[in-house]
Amino acid sequence: MKVGLDIMGGDYAPESTVKGAILAKQENPKIEIVLLGDEEIVRATLTENGGSVDDFTLVHCSQEVTMHDHPTRFLAQKPDSGIAKGFKLLKSGEIDALASAGNTGAMWVGSLYTVNAIAGIIRPCITSILPKLDGGQGVILDVGANADCKADVLYQFGILGSIYAKEVYGIENPRVGLLNIGEEEEKGNLLSQAAHELMKGTNDFNFVGNIEGRDLFSDESDVVVCDGFTGNVVLKQAEAVYTIHKKRKIEDEYFNRFNYELYGGTPVLGVNGNVIIGHGISSPKAIKNMIFHAADVIAADLPGKIKKALNNE
Amino acid sequence: MKVGLDIMGGDYAPESTVKGAILAKQENPKIEIVLLGDEEIVRATLTENGGSVDDFTLVHCSQEVTMHDHPTRFLAQKPDSGIAKGFKLLKSGEIDALASAGNTGAMWVGSLYTVNAIAGIIRPCITSILPKLDGGQGVILDVGANADCKADVLYQFGILGSIYAKEVYGIENPRVGLLNIGEEEEKGNLLSQAAHELMKGTNDFNFVGNIEGRDLFSDESDVVVCDGFTGNVVLKQAEAVYTIHKKRKIEDEYFNRFNYELYGGTPVLGVNGNVIIGHGISSPKAIKNMIFHAADVIAADLPGKIKKALNNE
Repeated sequence: MKVGLDIMGGDYAPESTVKGAILAKQENPKIEIVLLGDEEIVRATLTENGGSVDDFTLVHCSQEVTMHDHPTRFLAQKPDSGIAKGFKLLKSGEIDALASAGNTGAMWVGSLYTVNAIAGIIRPCITSILPKLDGGQGVILDVGANADCKADVLYQFGILGSIYAKEVYGIENPRVGLLNIGEEEEKGNLLSQAAHELMKGTNDFNFVGNIEGRDLFSDESDVVVCDGFTGNVVLKQAEAVYTIHKKRKIEDEYFNRFNYELYGGTPVLGVNGNVIIGHGISSPKAIKNMIFHAADVIAADLPGKIKKALNNE
Repeated sequence: MKVGLDIMGGDYAPESTVKGAILAKQENPKIEIVLLGDEEIVRATLTENGGSVDDFTLVHCSQEVTMHDHPTRFLAQKPDSGIAKGFKLLKSGEIDALASAGNTGAMWVGSLYTVNAIAGIIRPCITSILPKLDGGQGVILDVGANADCKADVLYQFGILGSIYAKEVYGIENPRVGLLNIGEEEEKGNLLSQAAHELMKGTNDFNFVGNIEGRDLFSDESDVVVCDGFTGNVVLKQAEAVYTIHKKRKIEDEYFNRFNYELYGGTPVLGVNGNVIIGHGISSPKAIKNMIFHAADVIAADLPGKIKKALNNE
């Protein structure tokens, strides 16, 4: 399997990305890593950090997508950037996944414009991890790609999240909870009430009812479904708690699992290809884990599983 | 000042409520506490816990609002309950505040049906505390009373929150942030985009722009405004983090400030009276602090300040 890595993506690129690629290759030589970036920079950074060009495939890209590039314009304006070229290679099957810790908007829009949403998927989405107190972990979606959602979109998130939890995290028959502000089914805002109505009694996934903010980290669900606005606030609040722990030098095994570096990145769920978006502040360790997560996602064949689930409906 | 306390409100009532009243009276004898409940139960519980009937005013209530009572029906069905009678006394001015850790829906609807929303207030709301890393504290509103909000409602929350932060917590010219999923003004869902547009350049409060989930506990704002759905998820997620700390025996000065017992209760903002809602699981300490918070809220004259602010518009 070939993982394409955008060398210029992330606040600490290209050092962090190249170092991360070297770490990943050392730990798992079987993963073919395709480095997308200016060849001169890639070679120099590899050499500086004790890496060997022979361990990687290099694809020269003369342009770079920055945080200032507009997500809907970079494909036309910077066709020779790592991200744009990466999407081309992903679409043609020359790489099996594209990973970047760079411009999230560009990665998102690039997914929708190149490999496209899977037929029948109303809105693809992005996810995050919810470390569970009992040692397991859950996923939450959407965490920011879709600020406004309708009930049928949340319903599909239930399908997408179930497939992701099962195929990538090995959770059998994942329990899907709807994030809400009360346990009773009539509670909530108009969206969650309508979504509950759609989910109740479904055979498409294992719906376990409403989940409150206090249940996010408990063992009541494996998949938490919400609109991207709420999910993004939840995710960033959890990140804030982790940051405060580090600042206050609180060392705790459970809260250490909130370290984004351990997960590396999140796939765009619901598109015809494996696209992994990393955190802007990614360290080499985070990049390494993003590459490993890309490999897991490739092995899981999420697009194939999603298509199959939609056809079974 | 007279604080009416619903003796039967809360999971551990009447022990917790009566004990809390005794503690409050011991610590601050100046607060007159009016105990609303079955006189026999109140007398017995006072005696059992070393309290004296002479320290309190007793108002006998033959009925009790439970968690199963419907919020919109209890006023008609249980007019002699502590909450219903309390609202009557509040409206007539015989008590200056009504406090209960019981049926939140009943307290909320009771506020709207008896003392009523202040003229010009579209939707009253409830708040919670955000402990700030630098030692201060902020407030967030709404945290659950209004699951669906429009932009003008969020705008008014900016006014209500500013008055509360200033008059009760002594924060001069409180900085109001709009909870959103990006710092840039065009970010967000339709609601937050519209609210940002309304708030930008306002003279009614000190708007400082968008606040992300990661900024909830930092010193960038004193008042965080959001719809009640998002705010409720934020509040309960913060409660979950505190609960996990206790479970894992992590003792930290900062995170200990998330203990709801320290705050006791939250006022219903935007109604013609001082109504304080406590946490269902309130301990005696929480009840004591709810009574103290009621006293602070009475002293602040929030309804008067809110009316003044609306007339100045």
